[in-house]
Amino acid sequence: MNTIILEAIQDFYPDDVSHCYGCGKLNDKGYQLKSYAVGEDTLARFTPSKHHTAIPGFVYGGLLASLIDCHGTGTAAIAAYKNEGRDFASDPPLRFVTASMKIDYLKPTPLGPELLINGKVKEIKGRKVVSEITISADGVVTVRGEVVAVQMPESMTK
Amino acid sequence: MNTIILEAIQDFYPDDVSHCYGCGKLNDKGYQLKSYAVGEDTLARFTPSKHHTAIPGFVYGGLLASLIDCHGTGTAAIAAYKNEGRDFASDPPLRFVTASMKIDYLKPTPLGPELLINGKVKEIKGRKVVSEITISADGVVTVRGEVVAVQMPESMTK
Repeated sequence: MNTIILEAIQDFYPDDVSHCYGCGKLNDKGYQLKSYAVGEDTLARFTPSKHHTAIPGFVYGGLLASLIDCHGTGTAAIAAYKNEGRDFASDPPLRFVTASMKIDYLKPTPLGPELLINGKVKEIKGRKVVSEITISADGVVTVRGEVVAVQMPESMTK
Repeated sequence: MNTIILEAIQDFYPDDVSHCYGCGKLNDKGYQLKSYAVGEDTLARFTPSKHHTAIPGFVYGGLLASLIDCHGTGTAAIAAYKNEGRDFASDPPLRFVTASMKIDYLKPTPLGPELLINGKVKEIKGRKVVSEITISADGVVTVRGEVVAVQMPESMTK
């Protein structure tokens, strides 16, 4: 049997920056989103809980924004390592924060099915990475976001 | 002693659309954000919990996006009632959903102080309301958002 093992970028974030509510592996109250490199693109998956509702039957837009936010910074980190020809475990660590994002709620996102969060890098320029993130449910894209992520300033980790 | 009593728009949402994770009065696991009309503008307040962290010491961007999202729809509803010269308790209820939003994280938002979320209506056109929402901590604006909200289609509540 042939298998491919993918490693999530968040599992390589240093412990002192691994408490993010959206994707920190050390935040046991958070979403613990994991972003994987899949070919040229990136992928994450998330199944909302029943209480993540907007109006009954649909996913809360703030959660969808959170998924786009975290997968956008994860996608940026993946792209930055690849761009430097480095593996995720190499030093120094590259960690990104969101500078801005634009989100279009194309249609209501049904609450129930697992959501797929896909990322495509649009631009890498210096410390900035721009990516397009889409969320789909049952094969239908319901949300599209653009995330401008920047490499975390040293001042935020001191 | 003179006092002013403000009523939150979310307390007037019908029960069947009051389960939003961000601002539904009936979602006991959610944030239960409340949006008030204050003069021409709107105001909400929120104190993040310790686990709502991005990196240590700062508020998670996905939560900030959630606050902007919900206060944007609350601001839209307040504006729509005012625009029609109606009070919040009058029928039919006016309930909005977010069509799109743009968020600029101007600087890191410190985790600890109460956040003030201010709303200003920029445009009302038919079923659409555009508002500018800012978040401030300790008197400093850290996040600025623009929310395009549309009156909820009937199809979402059936």
